[in-house]
Amino acid sequence: MNMLEIIRKKRDGLKLTEEELKYVVEGYVKGEIPDYQMSAFLMAVFFKHLDEDETYTLTEIMARSGDYLDLSGIPGKKVDKHSTGGVGDKTTLVVGPMVAALGLNFAKLSGRALGHSGGTIDKLESIPGFRTSLDREEFVEGVKKVGVVISGQTGNIAPADKKIYALRDVTATVDEISLIASSIMSKKLAVGSDAMVIDVKVGSGAFMKNIEDARKLANLLVKIGKMHGRRTVALLTDMDQPLGRMVGNALEVLEAVETLQGHGPEDFETLCVEIAAHMLVLGEVYSKLERARMEARKVLKDGRALEKFKQMVEYQGGNPRVVDDPENVLTFASNIVDVRAQDEGFVDHINAEKVGMAVVMLGGGRTRKDERIDHSVGVEILKKRGDKVKKGDVIAHIYASDFQKIQKARELVEEAYHITSTKPAKVPIIHGVVA
Amino acid sequence: MNMLEIIRKKRDGLKLTEEELKYVVEGYVKGEIPDYQMSAFLMAVFFKHLDEDETYTLTEIMARSGDYLDLSGIPGKKVDKHSTGGVGDKTTLVVGPMVAALGLNFAKLSGRALGHSGGTIDKLESIPGFRTSLDREEFVEGVKKVGVVISGQTGNIAPADKKIYALRDVTATVDEISLIASSIMSKKLAVGSDAMVIDVKVGSGAFMKNIEDARKLANLLVKIGKMHGRRTVALLTDMDQPLGRMVGNALEVLEAVETLQGHGPEDFETLCVEIAAHMLVLGEVYSKLERARMEARKVLKDGRALEKFKQMVEYQGGNPRVVDDPENVLTFASNIVDVRAQDEGFVDHINAEKVGMAVVMLGGGRTRKDERIDHSVGVEILKKRGDKVKKGDVIAHIYASDFQKIQKARELVEEAYHITSTKPAKVPIIHGVVA
Repeated sequence: MNMLEIIRKKRDGLKLTEEELKYVVEGYVKGEIPDYQMSAFLMAVFFKHLDEDETYTLTEIMARSGDYLDLSGIPGKKVDKHSTGGVGDKTTLVVGPMVAALGLNFAKLSGRALGHSGGTIDKLESIPGFRTSLDREEFVEGVKKVGVVISGQTGNIAPADKKIYALRDVTATVDEISLIASSIMSKKLAVGSDAMVIDVKVGSGAFMKNIEDARKLANLLVKIGKMHGRRTVALLTDMDQPLGRMVGNALEVLEAVETLQGHGPEDFETLCVEIAAHMLVLGEVYSKLERARMEARKVLKDGRALEKFKQMVEYQGGNPRVVDDPENVLTFASNIVDVRAQDEGFVDHINAEKVGMAVVMLGGGRTRKDERIDHSVGVEILKKRGDKVKKGDVIAHIYASDFQKIQKARELVEEAYHITSTKPAKVPIIHGVVA
Repeated sequence: MNMLEIIRKKRDGLKLTEEELKYVVEGYVKGEIPDYQMSAFLMAVFFKHLDEDETYTLTEIMARSGDYLDLSGIPGKKVDKHSTGGVGDKTTLVVGPMVAALGLNFAKLSGRALGHSGGTIDKLESIPGFRTSLDREEFVEGVKKVGVVISGQTGNIAPADKKIYALRDVTATVDEISLIASSIMSKKLAVGSDAMVIDVKVGSGAFMKNIEDARKLANLLVKIGKMHGRRTVALLTDMDQPLGRMVGNALEVLEAVETLQGHGPEDFETLCVEIAAHMLVLGEVYSKLERARMEARKVLKDGRALEKFKQMVEYQGGNPRVVDDPENVLTFASNIVDVRAQDEGFVDHINAEKVGMAVVMLGGGRTRKDERIDHSVGVEILKKRGDKVKKGDVIAHIYASDFQKIQKARELVEEAYHITSTKPAKVPIIHGVVA
């Protein structure tokens, strides 16, 4: 077997065997296959794709490339949750405590921000004292004790995916469905949950720009999950404007807390309830989705989810007063600048990618790994799709630490807003469910 | 400008600007663009191609990446010749002396063997004493004095192509028409000839396996040549069996000498006459092709071409007795083994690539650059397409230095022969001309 032949085979649209895929992944991880051959291979996959079998096999090989996180010591059902990445997506911070409050175990390994979409771990680190690098015992112990723990990747989870993803990122081979699916699922499979809900974002702020591609990806994810014996449901959800009102780390924690207090923005709250409801059904807490939704709404209103969040923050070393007085416990950038409407009419859509880029600009995200980020900056979206605006109305706020970056960030947010003369049709937050 | 954006643009089928192509090539040559991005880019080009403008521009950038070989000091017309590479292709050794004998200047920079097709420089080095690395002055002086010099690349001709080709070779991105065309033409343009004839090989032993692709490549080559002010003609010629009878370095020199003595194999002699005739017309020695053909045949018969070859060998330090007594001046491997027909019938075709691989096997070619080669080994093809054979007839000889390699080489040659029960139609050596 040699890599040149395998590149040629995929380039010519032929199906690869398990042995060949193993040779590629293992050889690459060991450093025996050079980056330049791997990137040519990945570009060939971009054009010729992997079929379902190949994707399934690649996922398995990458999942097995590192450690497995065994959760079997935790009694009860463990249901995982994943988002393909969106702007203003602080869902995990709310959904975790919600389902834990209703008896599920939420043992979540999360990532950091890269590109224009934020990372859950970075958001949590806005909370003073919050520790995101728990060791295995602390992690498992926390789930047993609190029911919800959110940590950065412990140990060596799917290192093959890590190395391959880093190369895809710099060779324009990220946005291919079989590669996206195997990357997501390899990490999920290496963590021993019973079932999972995957939030597949669709729209300007997501990998998947249109509903057809998103549905393809969702189908593939659900199929791979099932082939590996994990009950999997995928939701197709809107990312044609930022989720909720807040984008930026501390701002998003503030919004998560407000939502857990029962007064979050409508679109975000609806999404949290839907995801939590599907998780509760998969985890067999309730048999009917309708009932699960009702209970999920209830724990947001009666403070039980907020209490779980508080326990989690406390367990992970953070200041638990964040749930009572988030405005003072969290730090926000002191320069708050208005963004004004350039036109009169209705907000038709808000390019979420541009809003995300504005936050990266301000220092709230990363363009390279290991870049330090500023948790205090961000964008507050005041007018959302369907809202009526007059020229000059304040439509968003920019929170900036550095004056020099304000102008460019404001331009990006202005460009993100599309204003039309007719009121746009209402777009639901949930476009569909694949089970 | 950044490489990731350029990869993405080409991947999405968009046209690149001159500035972008310059950024890619110059950045890669300087080492600012890493191999892994370049190979992803090349694979994107493999699928999305470069259009005529882009190919023209890439060619120019690569041609300008190194030195120009100025031939303006040589009086008279300089006509170049290039082959896309075939098995048993010793045409340059014969055509150069032919056209020089009729008044053209043939200033030829040639390459070494790589893969299954042989290199002219390696063949010439079978002649004891022959020097293939002339400096610029020796090269130009030789052309002035003898009219024909064949040397390895002097100086730094199209280094961008060199570096890019080496990467294409290990990433399955060689066989794409716009990349092949720009690679060939960048080297040709960096040498100051007035016109050129390009021999585009078609068939099992060539890059271009079918006539349609070969014609596309020929059209592109001719167009690029003309866009740069060089009169260019391309011939589409057969490579569905090895050219002539001999494959291997010293064996091919022997066959070249025999052809210059007026008794070469028919297919090979016809090809040499056609190429020489087109060169003579392009170089304005004759205005009519028919007349040029006649004169070309004449210099093969009356010894004038052989005399030119002798002068060239002498000028380049080789033993000139090679033209009088090639069998004794050249060294041939001492183990000569028969290959026998496995079937009765007619030779339908001979997979030239396999024959080439057999010679590489025997040590007569290279799989990696800078590998040493054995000039004495090779394959003699006794039965060619259309010949009738009985089972057990000797159809080829293998010349081997190393006994251990004979078995595998014999198998390859056996596999190369396709024998059918009906006599195949005669295939002409010239499939077409693009001018």
